[in-house]
Amino acid sequence: MSTPYTLILLRHGNSDWNQKNLFTGWVDVHLSEQGVAEAKRAGELLASSGVLPDILYTSLLSRAIETANLALAEADRQWIDVKRSWRLNERHYGALQGKDKAQTLEEYGPEKFQTWRRSFDVPPPPIEDDAEYSQVGDPRYANIDGEVPRTECLKDVIERMLPYWHSDITDDLKAGKVVLVTAHGNSLRALIKHLDGISDDDIAELNVPTGIPLVYKLDENFVPIEPAAYLDPEAAAAGAAAVANQGKK
Amino acid sequence: MSTPYTLILLRHGNSDWNQKNLFTGWVDVHLSEQGVAEAKRAGELLASSGVLPDILYTSLLSRAIETANLALAEADRQWIDVKRSWRLNERHYGALQGKDKAQTLEEYGPEKFQTWRRSFDVPPPPIEDDAEYSQVGDPRYANIDGEVPRTECLKDVIERMLPYWHSDITDDLKAGKVVLVTAHGNSLRALIKHLDGISDDDIAELNVPTGIPLVYKLDENFVPIEPAAYLDPEAAAAGAAAVANQGKK
Repeated sequence: MSTPYTLILLRHGNSDWNQKNLFTGWVDVHLSEQGVAEAKRAGELLASSGVLPDILYTSLLSRAIETANLALAEADRQWIDVKRSWRLNERHYGALQGKDKAQTLEEYGPEKFQTWRRSFDVPPPPIEDDAEYSQVGDPRYANIDGEVPRTECLKDVIERMLPYWHSDITDDLKAGKVVLVTAHGNSLRALIKHLDGISDDDIAELNVPTGIPLVYKLDENFVPIEPAAYLDPEAAAAGAAAVANQGKK
Repeated sequence: MSTPYTLILLRHGNSDWNQKNLFTGWVDVHLSEQGVAEAKRAGELLASSGVLPDILYTSLLSRAIETANLALAEADRQWIDVKRSWRLNERHYGALQGKDKAQTLEEYGPEKFQTWRRSFDVPPPPIEDDAEYSQVGDPRYANIDGEVPRTECLKDVIERMLPYWHSDITDDLKAGKVVLVTAHGNSLRALIKHLDGISDDDIAELNVPTGIPLVYKLDENFVPIEPAAYLDPEAAAAGAAAVANQGKK
């Protein structure tokens, strides 16, 4: 198959917990009404731009799966192949999972808060195995390699996500398929960091808006041949700014 | 993995065209409101019975995919693996696709009508390639082996479905996975005929109700160790009778 390969990244729409301003991580929350609308809009953007996926990759979290289902229904592509992996999951937020963002900011101060949210290699404190929002014992992770994470920094996400990129996703690109990856703020930041060669420091400034397809054209070495483009650039800029302001009052 | 293997068959819920009493076949219609409710109810039945699928098989038709998505969301199993194949599609209804059932019955008489609906090896007249409801050129069938069907009898469905049963579905059963197959009246009749050893004549009398999971327990040779059981037997009996009466006024 001839290059360029086409890769579409899509961050799930707004969830119940985005709405409530809680740290979510691996907690399996559902899309909010706004998120449902965003997902459908993403599908309309795919359909109207003619960038039609041949295969879908999702995390194991409902908000990503629901976003993909709604977007593909809208684009009349529900019938494409699907692969799912925990390796595309959101960053595990450790003991912060289920905590209010504004309250955490107040309680721990802006320095710790920003470190936990955006530092490359400092994870939040680990979650206890018997905590309400721990994923230990969740049947969906019964077959993952190794243990369910108790907390993760972005570096950890890169380390568990990239092997899947190399083992599975690139194979489908190589086969000439248009690949849609529907995932999360941090698993997508991890992939974008890799694709665009962003430094450990600079990735802190990158925010991925929800519900707007980001299209990459890649050469045979999976290097972008031009800057990736959001299918709705104006909405994407507004959305990224909104993510950057999360937790601020 | 130890036997018995667990196989769940689920016929998609009522569709827009069931509602309008039209022959559907490979025409890609969506679930009706009733169908959406049936699909959710199927998911509740899976959850309450504790028969939880590890992997989903669907056809390439939206009504089966939508049924599976809704049922799995209800049972909190959206995250399971998915495989899709045109080999699980409904029987292709040939030139009858898009035609009113009652009107067809009136026009051609009860004998032809019943032959086309229920005979084992007499397909309806083939659909023209340029007809409104032909699937020639539909991108979802770009990669199927051979040509898109122009019409099918149940025998044809068995011949294209069984290879997939043997090549893929039985492998997942053998691996100890609980397999959910969400498909159509005739692709499921084809599979049930095979599993239960029903004769070419007797299969005419078998009707599969919509939206009620049918659970098989299979031995290591994929032979049922006991009669398959619907998760809601009363509703299933009523549903099967309703299917049998289709086209009658």
